[in-house]
Amino acid sequence: MVTSAIALTGLASLLWADQTYCDAATDDKQRRAEGPITDSDPMRLRMEAFVKGLQNRIVADIEQMDGKQFTRTTWQRKEGGEGITCVLQDGNVFEKAGVGVSIVYGQLPKAAVEQMRHDRGKDISADGPVPFFAAGISLVIHPVNPNAPTVHMNYRYFEIENEDGTPKMWWFGGGSDLTPSYLFEDDCIHFHQVLKDGCDKFDKKYYGNFKQWCDKYFYNKHRGESRGIGGIFFDDLDDKPADEVFNFVKEMGNRFSQSYLPIIKKRMTMKYTPEMKNWQQIRRGRYVEFNLVWDRGTKFGLQTPGARIEAILMSLPLTARWEYMAEVEPGSAEEALEEVLKNPVDWIPLD
Amino acid sequence: MVTSAIALTGLASLLWADQTYCDAATDDKQRRAEGPITDSDPMRLRMEAFVKGLQNRIVADIEQMDGKQFTRTTWQRKEGGEGITCVLQDGNVFEKAGVGVSIVYGQLPKAAVEQMRHDRGKDISADGPVPFFAAGISLVIHPVNPNAPTVHMNYRYFEIENEDGTPKMWWFGGGSDLTPSYLFEDDCIHFHQVLKDGCDKFDKKYYGNFKQWCDKYFYNKHRGESRGIGGIFFDDLDDKPADEVFNFVKEMGNRFSQSYLPIIKKRMTMKYTPEMKNWQQIRRGRYVEFNLVWDRGTKFGLQTPGARIEAILMSLPLTARWEYMAEVEPGSAEEALEEVLKNPVDWIPLD
Repeated sequence: MVTSAIALTGLASLLWADQTYCDAATDDKQRRAEGPITDSDPMRLRMEAFVKGLQNRIVADIEQMDGKQFTRTTWQRKEGGEGITCVLQDGNVFEKAGVGVSIVYGQLPKAAVEQMRHDRGKDISADGPVPFFAAGISLVIHPVNPNAPTVHMNYRYFEIENEDGTPKMWWFGGGSDLTPSYLFEDDCIHFHQVLKDGCDKFDKKYYGNFKQWCDKYFYNKHRGESRGIGGIFFDDLDDKPADEVFNFVKEMGNRFSQSYLPIIKKRMTMKYTPEMKNWQQIRRGRYVEFNLVWDRGTKFGLQTPGARIEAILMSLPLTARWEYMAEVEPGSAEEALEEVLKNPVDWIPLD
Repeated sequence: MVTSAIALTGLASLLWADQTYCDAATDDKQRRAEGPITDSDPMRLRMEAFVKGLQNRIVADIEQMDGKQFTRTTWQRKEGGEGITCVLQDGNVFEKAGVGVSIVYGQLPKAAVEQMRHDRGKDISADGPVPFFAAGISLVIHPVNPNAPTVHMNYRYFEIENEDGTPKMWWFGGGSDLTPSYLFEDDCIHFHQVLKDGCDKFDKKYYGNFKQWCDKYFYNKHRGESRGIGGIFFDDLDDKPADEVFNFVKEMGNRFSQSYLPIIKKRMTMKYTPEMKNWQQIRRGRYVEFNLVWDRGTKFGLQTPGARIEAILMSLPLTARWEYMAEVEPGSAEEALEEVLKNPVDWIPLD
């Protein structure tokens, strides 16, 4: 049901509306007050500490590259949980960069439980509302230079609680994908290689499976083209002990700067024409279309009464363009990109 | 199910996919070949002639005001029916103007019939596919000057056929609404007055009912604000003899230029600042959000395999902008607009 950390913001609003007491929130609050989180603490607190730390590191990396500071907005709820939204806008290198973290304690309504059981085979009893926890980091970065690609990353942890606040069921989800306006094979290979190397440390099947899942998910059906050149995407991951899956998610989150910033360094100073900027703006329009029409997390968030819309829509580019029947020239760089979006490429040979 | 003529394009693709023979298409084709359509012809042909004529007149009016020509794209299907899409882009007065006409002969799949019966109380038997006809005109015009409002208009006719090609059931739908970035009460009153005067000729209840329907339909739920300052909207209109409802629809369509162009004439030469252009671009973003997230016609079209996407999305502005937490200053003109979008105004006292 929840497919992106961006949506957690919406989820929070929905579920806090008729909040009942949640043991986990109280336990965790007390534990936080006692001192630093360690590996022996519940996964909730470990994931929270991880995504907050990762957010700080990524924000620092991006600020160093851009020279402009992020604005930082935090909000808290009395029931437990909070959000931190960092946005850099109209920067030197980045047109818009949003890095958000959400921590949510709430109750899944009966209908949501039924849906999870039906659509995703979750073995949850649905006699009444079910307490849950969710924590995630989500980012989207749109650079100024049309030679430099947009990137998206999201990792999240979801837990269903027993009545005493211990976890009854848990899973991780997330991924990262690249959306260029102009194709540089080097960049695609670099991005995928960094992801594959991380995946391979944990399971040789992960990269191939998650790469295909990504191509399938980030697809603009009405255009018959992918949003970008892919990456990885997974959900409901609980196939190994929680510690191991958490280590995998940390590995992948920690690889973000390495996967993306070397590409930006190469592209941010390249010369470009107004025509190239125009093409980038058209591609940004397609990004908006995917996020508003198809992305399950965004759709869920927008349909949630009282959701924090600004946090959900921080993923949208600063500017976008829709030209009627914009057609690319045969043999052009624009056509080369379209070709790859219509026929996803295995940038690294799959085993 | 079908709520905008833009969606008819999608409908056409969907329904022609497994097209079976449709008597009405053949009859109408023969009749067209014989000479000009008159008042004694079937409503299908009269509505087709009306929307095509109206499209030509509106395109001519807009071209005269702008000084730049529309591009005109037509397509035909062998089963009968056609589309004409006229778009003016990057003009002197208009950033983007799209005026489209669709004529569709097809078969409603059983599921669509069931949905119409269930959601809209249509008394259609659903033993198998049901032949239908639809014709409509749809336009969206986005001016360059932020003082000048965007406008939308759409009128459509829908008919379910008996097996012999005679109409078994019919209805009209449509409306017109205004979306300013800056509020000029004069403009709002003028626009609504022209619509009300047209409505009042046919039924004193029309304007009040359709004005409220418009406020309810063109609402960005996730923002808690209307798309614009309203107008009229109606669907399933069959409360009087078909000739009379058709006359009403013609009256309203014919009032378009009178409702909108005097406003443009007043606003197109007004001075504006870069900050005002910026605000207009943010409002354009909200327009995109409504059309991609909430508009039933657009959503239906985008989810239709093989639909003519360019015609469906001609309603999107040429450019749009999403700023994080863009806030308006207290007492500003921007705030005055937001106030009206949050609390719809009766521009003309209702009886």
